[in-house]
Amino acid sequence: MEYRMEKLFPVYAMGLSKANVGGDVSLEILDSIVGDPIWDAVREEAKLEAEKEPILSSFLYASILSHDCLEQALAFVLANRLHNLTLLATQLMDIIGKVILNDRDIQRAIRLDMQAFKDRDPSCLSHCSVLLYLKGYHSLQSYRVAHALWNHGRKELALALQSRISEVFGVDIHPAAQIGEEILLDHATGVVIGETAVVGNRVSLMQGVTLGGSGKEIGDRHPKVAQGALIGASATILGNIKIGEGAMIAAGSLVLKDVPPHSMVAGIPARLIGHVHEQDPSLTMKHGTSKYQHAHHAFLQNHFIHI
Amino acid sequence: MEYRMEKLFPVYAMGLSKANVGGDVSLEILDSIVGDPIWDAVREEAKLEAEKEPILSSFLYASILSHDCLEQALAFVLANRLHNLTLLATQLMDIIGKVILNDRDIQRAIRLDMQAFKDRDPSCLSHCSVLLYLKGYHSLQSYRVAHALWNHGRKELALALQSRISEVFGVDIHPAAQIGEEILLDHATGVVIGETAVVGNRVSLMQGVTLGGSGKEIGDRHPKVAQGALIGASATILGNIKIGEGAMIAAGSLVLKDVPPHSMVAGIPARLIGHVHEQDPSLTMKHGTSKYQHAHHAFLQNHFIHI
Amino acid sequence: MEYRMEKLFPVYAMGLSKANVGGDVSLEILDSIVGDPIWDAVREEAKLEAEKEPILSSFLYASILSHDCLEQALAFVLANRLHNLTLLATQLMDIIGKVILNDRDIQRAIRLDMQAFKDRDPSCLSHCSVLLYLKGYHSLQSYRVAHALWNHGRKELALALQSRISEVFGVDIHPAAQIGEEILLDHATGVVIGETAVVGNRVSLMQGVTLGGSGKEIGDRHPKVAQGALIGASATILGNIKIGEGAMIAAGSLVLKDVPPHSMVAGIPARLIGHVHEQDPSLTMKHGTSKYQHAHHAFLQNHFIHI
Amino acid sequence: MEYRMEKLFPVYAMGLSKANVGGDVSLEILDSIVGDPIWDAVREEAKLEAEKEPILSSFLYASILSHDCLEQALAFVLANRLHNLTLLATQLMDIIGKVILNDRDIQRAIRLDMQAFKDRDPSCLSHCSVLLYLKGYHSLQSYRVAHALWNHGRKELALALQSRISEVFGVDIHPAAQIGEEILLDHATGVVIGETAVVGNRVSLMQGVTLGGSGKEIGDRHPKVAQGALIGASATILGNIKIGEGAMIAAGSLVLKDVPPHSMVAGIPARLIGHVHEQDPSLTMKHGTSKYQHAHHAFLQNHFIHI
Amino acid sequence: MEYRMEKLFPVYAMGLSKANVGGDVSLEILDSIVGDPIWDAVREEAKLEAEKEPILSSFLYASILSHDCLEQALAFVLANRLHNLTLLATQLMDIIGKVILNDRDIQRAIRLDMQAFKDRDPSCLSHCSVLLYLKGYHSLQSYRVAHALWNHGRKELALALQSRISEVFGVDIHPAAQIGEEILLDHATGVVIGETAVVGNRVSLMQGVTLGGSGKEIGDRHPKVAQGALIGASATILGNIKIGEGAMIAAGSLVLKDVPPHSMVAGIPARLIGHVHEQDPSLTMKHGTSKYQHAHHAFLQNHFIHI
Amino acid sequence: MEYRMEKLFPVYAMGLSKANVGGDVSLEILDSIVGDPIWDAVREEAKLEAEKEPILSSFLYASILSHDCLEQALAFVLANRLHNLTLLATQLMDIIGKVILNDRDIQRAIRLDMQAFKDRDPSCLSHCSVLLYLKGYHSLQSYRVAHALWNHGRKELALALQSRISEVFGVDIHPAAQIGEEILLDHATGVVIGETAVVGNRVSLMQGVTLGGSGKEIGDRHPKVAQGALIGASATILGNIKIGEGAMIAAGSLVLKDVPPHSMVAGIPARLIGHVHEQDPSLTMKHGTSKYQHAHHAFLQNHFIHI
Repeated sequence: MEYRMEKLFPVYAMGLSKANVGGDVSLEILDSIVGDPIWDAVREEAKLEAEKEPILSSFLYASILSHDCLEQALAFVLANRLHNLTLLATQLMDIIGKVILNDRDIQRAIRLDMQAFKDRDPSCLSHCSVLLYLKGYHSLQSYRVAHALWNHGRKELALALQSRISEVFGVDIHPAAQIGEEILLDHATGVVIGETAVVGNRVSLMQGVTLGGSGKEIGDRHPKVAQGALIGASATILGNIKIGEGAMIAAGSLVLKDVPPHSMVAGIPARLIGHVHEQDPSLTMKHGTSKYQHAHHAFLQNHFIHI
Repeated sequence: MEYRMEKLFPVYAMGLSKANVGGDVSLEILDSIVGDPIWDAVREEAKLEAEKEPILSSFLYASILSHDCLEQALAFVLANRLHNLTLLATQLMDIIGKVILNDRDIQRAIRLDMQAFKDRDPSCLSHCSVLLYLKGYHSLQSYRVAHALWNHGRKELALALQSRISEVFGVDIHPAAQIGEEILLDHATGVVIGETAVVGNRVSLMQGVTLGGSGKEIGDRHPKVAQGALIGASATILGNIKIGEGAMIAAGSLVLKDVPPHSMVAGIPARLIGHVHEQDPSLTMKHGTSKYQHAHHAFLQNHFIHI
Repeated sequence: MEYRMEKLFPVYAMGLSKANVGGDVSLEILDSIVGDPIWDAVREEAKLEAEKEPILSSFLYASILSHDCLEQALAFVLANRLHNLTLLATQLMDIIGKVILNDRDIQRAIRLDMQAFKDRDPSCLSHCSVLLYLKGYHSLQSYRVAHALWNHGRKELALALQSRISEVFGVDIHPAAQIGEEILLDHATGVVIGETAVVGNRVSLMQGVTLGGSGKEIGDRHPKVAQGALIGASATILGNIKIGEGAMIAAGSLVLKDVPPHSMVAGIPARLIGHVHEQDPSLTMKHGTSKYQHAHHAFLQNHFIHI
Repeated sequence: MEYRMEKLFPVYAMGLSKANVGGDVSLEILDSIVGDPIWDAVREEAKLEAEKEPILSSFLYASILSHDCLEQALAFVLANRLHNLTLLATQLMDIIGKVILNDRDIQRAIRLDMQAFKDRDPSCLSHCSVLLYLKGYHSLQSYRVAHALWNHGRKELALALQSRISEVFGVDIHPAAQIGEEILLDHATGVVIGETAVVGNRVSLMQGVTLGGSGKEIGDRHPKVAQGALIGASATILGNIKIGEGAMIAAGSLVLKDVPPHSMVAGIPARLIGHVHEQDPSLTMKHGTSKYQHAHHAFLQNHFIHI
Repeated sequence: MEYRMEKLFPVYAMGLSKANVGGDVSLEILDSIVGDPIWDAVREEAKLEAEKEPILSSFLYASILSHDCLEQALAFVLANRLHNLTLLATQLMDIIGKVILNDRDIQRAIRLDMQAFKDRDPSCLSHCSVLLYLKGYHSLQSYRVAHALWNHGRKELALALQSRISEVFGVDIHPAAQIGEEILLDHATGVVIGETAVVGNRVSLMQGVTLGGSGKEIGDRHPKVAQGALIGASATILGNIKIGEGAMIAAGSLVLKDVPPHSMVAGIPARLIGHVHEQDPSLTMKHGTSKYQHAHHAFLQNHFIHI
Repeated sequence: MEYRMEKLFPVYAMGLSKANVGGDVSLEILDSIVGDPIWDAVREEAKLEAEKEPILSSFLYASILSHDCLEQALAFVLANRLHNLTLLATQLMDIIGKVILNDRDIQRAIRLDMQAFKDRDPSCLSHCSVLLYLKGYHSLQSYRVAHALWNHGRKELALALQSRISEVFGVDIHPAAQIGEEILLDHATGVVIGETAVVGNRVSLMQGVTLGGSGKEIGDRHPKVAQGALIGASATILGNIKIGEGAMIAAGSLVLKDVPPHSMVAGIPARLIGHVHEQDPSLTMKHGTSKYQHAHHAFLQNHFIHI
């Protein structure tokens, strides 16, 4: 992954700590030297699609081809999804655009996330379709904007945005939650991520996943998911517990206590059923690979009836 | 709970049976004596927010500050969420307003539910945000209106409203279902409640919960959930079975038979894994507290491999 | 079922292979002889409802009574649900109408599906309400249109439609997936069906069901669900596995390997818990009937503690 | 006219000065005795139309039949015409409704104006069509609301409403202008009425009429049109001049000085061309009757060539 | 003109009386032989524009290129202009489409009018821009649809459409008025045409023209404008009078009595100021050509002071 | 006028020819020195209004207070007026913003026009209300954007914008027309300005004015209006004629030949009726001042009967 990142984002990936970014070398200059291969890909694909499908050509032009950078295009796309009678499209485009254009971390994340969607979802054929069509991507980037607003003290606006994201996409992420980059939010309907949840880099979350609190007490009460973890569809993880690096949570499971790194858990409540040999199961997305099948098989043989 | 209720709703809580309400003492007079602390709180919070966030100030004014009572404000909020080309916003505001202003039970419930959301969801900072932003609250109160229409014989309109609630909020509650008050519908996406389901007071339902039928026969075929129960995310409860008072259903579980009062069940199909010592687990919302952890731990030790 | 189908769709059901349809006997002539009992029922019900509920009378007229056939009515209904600023309602009505009017298989399916919804959902009181109000039906038929567009090489438009279906209904069906007829998609929120999934005739899928891939490799990687199967709410089925004819998957289960015909599975991961004696459990929808209860009971007695 | 008014509005017409209205006899009681023949007519017509035209039946129900009084119906109709992204339909219905329900003069005027439209426009077949379809009536009543808001000190809102009326109807009436009752604003496009203009009772104004100022000085600078006057299409009247009772201004004329009562003027600038024998030419609407023709004929004979 | 018509519409122009059309030769067959040069031109131009302006390419595709004939394209364009919350775009497209596709006269008129706009307005560069952008054309064709509905007894719907045309385009044409073909309605804002008005073929009407009634009596009370007449901007013609063939009415004039064929009139009230030597001044549109100037000059020399 | 301009726009007014602008002194630096008193006024007024009227406070914030400069605020306001299903609000804001921010002349003009509206319309109380509410200002600035697009070769987009301006505001200005600055377009409904028309600086045009062509020949065929002229309501000026500096055209007049500088004309066709002693009658707006009255009076005395 480091390899691909280096290839695609030479600036971001060259080991610069965030503190270094924005130092004495102008970002604008770096950008102009290095280019933006993600944005180039999006534009190239959009051009091809516009030629193939006239019904969508103006949409592709308005959403992508008429913009100067991915940041603007994304602001346009999100504004046209989220607007309602309270938050006008023009107003949202303005707000979202300003947030993203002033936040170097979000600029990184929107590219790394896009690459993650493209890499890990085999039915995703282009970067362009991530930007235009995937509501997992839309809700994730809308959360990033709400998160930045929250951190800048505009909590009311952040909550209004959260409410709108929940209504439009069926995804409810509290603006105070902390989510890393290279995230895949696949299909996304029904995802809930609570206020004090933390999600590390390179995590994949399937539809219907809950990272919830374990009661009504105030304070740090939501899960901490370490990098590279893969959380299956409709899994529910509750309480201030740790999901270790590269762990796998089987779909539908209920997790109530810490999950060790590189382990697999399943069931209600979830129990350990195997180890994960890959560094980042979130990248291969093998929810039901042979390893798992094997563990599963042994598990069944020992403990369940076969009618 | 009675205590809090008494403090907040002196009229409602003074032990009047519903039969008494509307008796020889004019409700209007009672109201003018007692006041409406919930509505006062909503207005006070709205004023503070309007000062902090100019983007939302007119929205707060239009939704809350320009109205005379919570009933009107709610009709305004719901109409602007649910309207489409068939059901105009103005028409919906009219219909919803008339239903609520003529139904003393709904007037009680919209306040008690709001308090329930505020009390049980620690990330919920104000009554005002329940009214404006929480789609669990929106879909619950929209159901209450559809339920009243159904009972008044306007079944077609009730079903049209149900369809619209399902489309906008992803929440599908049959208008004939019976739901008590002090209900929390948290996050709400994916909730399904069937035609003959009954939900008692003080119940908390998380996102993705199904109270479904167990076949295609007609008649009483959906769960009866007694007061104070807590149903975890994505749990599925099927058939005309009883979920006892203060029971807890673990997230993701499939429940196919009666659950005794104050017991915990989990799994697919769900089995008993412990007792609940609290009166109303729905109020503390401790899905994964030590008690549960303990039961869970013992359960795992006895019955599952640890690889 | 064959019986009912024969009664309702004499042309379709008289054993004509698809190859025969469109042969030397003009379809138009056959239609005029045989009639369309489904469409007649829809119209009859709509007339009755229009008389009962003036708020909906024009909606019923515009959606149903002003149209010449079910195909046009459906195009009208779907266009008014799916349109946004990119895909105008008029444009969508045109596109959807043309697709359906030129695809004999879709014409069959929209009638057989409607009958399936009406037969299997006891709270569904009329064919008319399936057409107007059930988002499971809406998303299924929208998928059928996207599928036809995909097969005609208009992949970009098909993906745009998929994205819109996912946003409006919370249902994410890849346009390349293959889905038979007489399908019930009940409540529908959160359903995900992947690119290479195959669903046979007479299958019932509850809300929150995932037919997902088991990794990021390209190729045939999604489940094959044989006819008559019943998949419970929030069940997750992953990988290129076979769900046998008439199999039952309990709600919330995670299925990672083949399920034999007429067997019941449950759990995370799912294990066999019984046999299904009915031909098509999808038709009776008895998720939790006595047979199941019995198996479940035995299962619990043998294998779980009772605290 | 007094006669007809007495017949139709017994309460209003019984010679009560405005000071008397609202005196010691409750208006509500009077109303309940006397009834509202205008509102009865509107409802009766709406019922007949709803039966004839199903496309419009719900519109008629929502606009008229579902309301309790003309005031509510009008608020509904205007809100659905004037709303945009700044002034929501629900908000406007609320504002307009409150203004009209609290202003006895507007309640009189909306009835008398409606009767005026019905009486003087021979192609107007019903009171109901005045309420639903005539933008002259819509812009006049919208002005009345803006005028009341202006008088209550809400000048910003009044100006916002004026701007919206001008955009939607092409009618620009300053909210401070004073306009009497029994007014006909026929076709209405292009009408401009300035800040200090005064229009008496029973005046008829055709499309394109300007009652404008004569310079940029501040103060009383717009025309005063006395009762019963008839102003032809595209006529322009400028400055603080008097148009006498029952005067007629020919279409297209430019009027820059006082016009005596019961006189006809025409031309650019306008000159006297005859006398009006009727009391109120605005009621007969004979712009070009024999009298006029005669004067015109004599005028031409004496003063113009015939090529 | 006959010549051009013959070239462009060989079928229509070959001297067939309307009675002949629809005789024993199928219209469809004739059409397929003859072709539709207007529609071909519209499509050709749309293709060129779509290539030049990506912002408009999908609009051009959806409005023109995706349709099979001019009738469908026009129904699409008008529906998207006229729709509001009462008359949905999809519904209007359906209604308008059905009216036009069943009315041979309207099919002729929409082509001949388009050619008239293209020929007589020098700033109009293409047939395509008439269809897409000219509100004179839009309001004229919308009137034709309302007129057909009126004649089919759907008077309520026709009036609803008239009201909408007046609101959207500022053009108020009573659906009962009779208007010929090859009509130019230039700029169009403020045009008013009354119930019993008759407008012959090849007439040109500028913005702000009124063909109004002369009083409130019922019956035939509006002008009859013979073919080839040209009516200048803001001219007002009142009463059941005849405007002769090829007559010219100067802008701003008020006409109250018959105007002889091929004569020019001007003024308030209008008087004869010259003869028109052209057959159809409406085609050359020379409102102020040398001839007129000359007459005007002589007129002024003889009759007015020069200060 | 030079005086006021110098005071308000020191940079623009210091005698810089357009050629000089953008020379070796950076405009940005000049701006930062000089400030923008118009924008400051708009913001100051918006703040005051937002405090007075809560219904409008967010609208004022979104339209004015959240923007950095007048250019952005105007792009926001126009986009929200002109958008429809073809031209999205976000897209229009983008297009309009880019045009204005890159065109120094438009930046001058939007300020000078605003001052003109404020100075010459006594009922206009603030710069802020010009920006938000006056459709004359909206249509004028929308034309300026269309004109720039036309000059940049985007003729199709310019025509699409013209069509939209005509529909929304009832103002039809060809994008190729040339219009100076310090223009007042008062009330604006019905204004038509043709392709080759030229309007000088400091001109005032009232509602319903036509600057039209005199036939269907191609080429330079529209009026040239010199600076400081005042054109009254519904006046029609036709052909390639000259309206001299500081001339006055009476309302309703038809002008077919040159009008000398500082002269008054009136009538159909228009004739000279006096001289204008002011430099710029457009600035004082005295359509009907004593001088005019006097001329008018003398005119009437000598030439018309008094019945």
